Amino acid sequence: MKSSILSLVLLCCSLFAQAQIVYHNADQFPLYGKATEATATRYERFPDSLRNISRKPLWELSQNSAGLAIRFRTNSTTIAAKWELLLDRTMSHMTPVGIKGLDLYSLENGEWKFVNSGRPTGKSSQNTIISNMTPEMREYLLYLPLYDGVTALEIGIDSLALIDQPKVEMPTQNKPIVFYGTSILQGACASRPGMAHTNILSRWLNRECINLGFSGNGQLDLEVAEVIAGVDAGCFVLDFVPNASVDQMNEKAYQFYSIIRSKHPDTPIIFIEDPIFAHSYFDQRAARELSNKNKTINELFRTWKKQGEKNIYFISSQKMLGDDREATVDGIHFTDLGMMRYAELIYPVIKKNLKK
Amino acid sequence: MKSSILSLVLLCCSLFAQAQIVYHNADQFPLYGKATEATATRYERFPDSLRNISRKPLWELSQNSAGLAIRFRTNSTTIAAKWELLLDRTMSHMTPVGIKGLDLYSLENGEWKFVNSGRPTGKSSQNTIISNMTPEMREYLLYLPLYDGVTALEIGIDSLALIDQPKVEMPTQNKPIVFYGTSILQGACASRPGMAHTNILSRWLNRECINLGFSGNGQLDLEVAEVIAGVDAGCFVLDFVPNASVDQMNEKAYQFYSIIRSKHPDTPIIFIEDPIFAHSYFDQRAARELSNKNKTINELFRTWKKQGEKNIYFISSQKMLGDDREATVDGIHFTDLGMMRYAELIYPVIKKNLKK
Repeated sequence: MKSSILSLVLLCCSLFAQAQIVYHNADQFPLYGKATEATATRYERFPDSLRNISRKPLWELSQNSAGLAIRFRTNSTTIAAKWELLLDRTMSHMTPVGIKGLDLYSLENGEWKFVNSGRPTGKSSQNTIISNMTPEMREYLLYLPLYDGVTALEIGIDSLALIDQPKVEMPTQNKPIVFYGTSILQGACASRPGMAHTNILSRWLNRECINLGFSGNGQLDLEVAEVIAGVDAGCFVLDFVPNASVDQMNEKAYQFYSIIRSKHPDTPIIFIEDPIFAHSYFDQRAARELSNKNKTINELFRTWKKQGEKNIYFISSQKMLGDDREATVDGIHFTDLGMMRYAELIYPVIKKNLKK
Repeated sequence: MKSSILSLVLLCCSLFAQAQIVYHNADQFPLYGKATEATATRYERFPDSLRNISRKPLWELSQNSAGLAIRFRTNSTTIAAKWELLLDRTMSHMTPVGIKGLDLYSLENGEWKFVNSGRPTGKSSQNTIISNMTPEMREYLLYLPLYDGVTALEIGIDSLALIDQPKVEMPTQNKPIVFYGTSILQGACASRPGMAHTNILSRWLNRECINLGFSGNGQLDLEVAEVIAGVDAGCFVLDFVPNASVDQMNEKAYQFYSIIRSKHPDTPIIFIEDPIFAHSYFDQRAARELSNKNKTINELFRTWKKQGEKNIYFISSQKMLGDDREATVDGIHFTDLGMMRYAELIYPVIKKNLKK
């Protein structure tokens, strides 16, 4: 009789504990995806020293948390999150989850598996990401918003569960991959943060990937090359053609490249062509611009090769998005279908050339 | 001299004419994707006779224009649209373009090719979809919003261009395919209307596809079976398992099926299992529900086969979404990646069994 009562009390306590969610500040857990630690607040991408140097739109985009991810482990049966956004931005061609939500993955037999996304409800969000799990200790990776800034983040777990530092270093932080580019690279228009192609590639390659994509502003600003050059990377991917004009490429692409190359004489640097935008099959002006830009980057690359530049690679966009023209939401920005096809194209090239 | 001036005047007129967009009411052009013409307004899915019969949420969802599309042809260099929405709804896991935008395709060598999407700006939207085209006469297909209603729609073209009835009957309206189902079937969470899988399949099969997907409400309401049975279809696809409970399936699935079968003794009817939701690998409750539902639909199907039901087919969800668990935005609702994988699974089964 006594033991039945005790069991009942214990069961009630356990159910109560599971229902009670306690929040832990994410600041105590490792953050992946940053080019520099010298940022004003934790979840932004540029060193604070660029605040009055970079163009305003570029600086503001550097405050978007694209490509950043928190690592932790817990045995909680529920995982929730509270997060504060800088802007609470909306866009008509992207889901709020992709713009300003969270995305949780867990390690299963050495592979990152999608658990669920954290759906935003406003400037301040509090939401359960997953519940009803068995109380096993698991490693987690929580991707931050692609197109908004995060000013505060807390992770919620069952009140009696444990949350701790990750035990496994995965993705490996050693020699990360730095990607520089545009809105597409920043993650437009992935349905959720984990589907930005730099995040897909990070999971596939088991390497930290640093996302320096800046919507509309991948225009070869030279101070960004300095930030990139500051990373002891295993590979650099320069994917600026959708934003850089022919003039900007002719004027600045070599200098941008040289800033990186001078500090990393033998690190692979990959250049990527402008995607063949779906609407350019109909929009003649878009087709001409695309053609001119790709002619320019091809000519520049050939010239550099002739000049004897080593360890530079070029990826054609011919097969980037498949041949059905279905992989974008607006002709330009990749859906998850486009992100997956892009990742499949880039993966073997990086894999083959990545420095250990 | 005179002829130069004349040329200049003509050039100016032509440029001015192109810049001037004139709007034409879409009511005059054929509408595809409706099960019945007896609707209260043009862009809704249920006959008005169900207004006070169907459950309120089901009736309201029937006013969403999922799967509806306008056909026309024009030689305009620009195509624009003005549209009025019923609700101007927002959802955190779907793009506004998918919820309440438009999606334009054009016929090219006998295949529908994506042109561009029409991005909503509010309850009333006016937006250019594509511009800078050569002034050729082309056939167009314009998909309507998936998760909102359209109360008015106008198509904008260059003031001197022609807009006319389609010349090609494509997709063929003969023996359409009727799909019955849930939020996923209604198109959650395609990035744009053309990527809802019923719309993808319509393009691939060159058949009109009628979308009777009702978010959260694919619960085997028998009056919907009557609507479905009213269509002289080439195939029926019943994809209700994500919404129907085990009890609902046991109580109503056979009756729902029989209403259709009694009017169409030899038309193929395809049943589809619950998708293996990505979060169900972690959420034990979701996993149990999924398992119970799929056990139920499998048992029911086996029983019907034993009873001698003919022309019924069953599609397992085992390979529906690939094996990477990446094809949903929230564990449940398909992104374009999921929609494409789903379409690839269903396509050969329909193709093989579709009545001429």
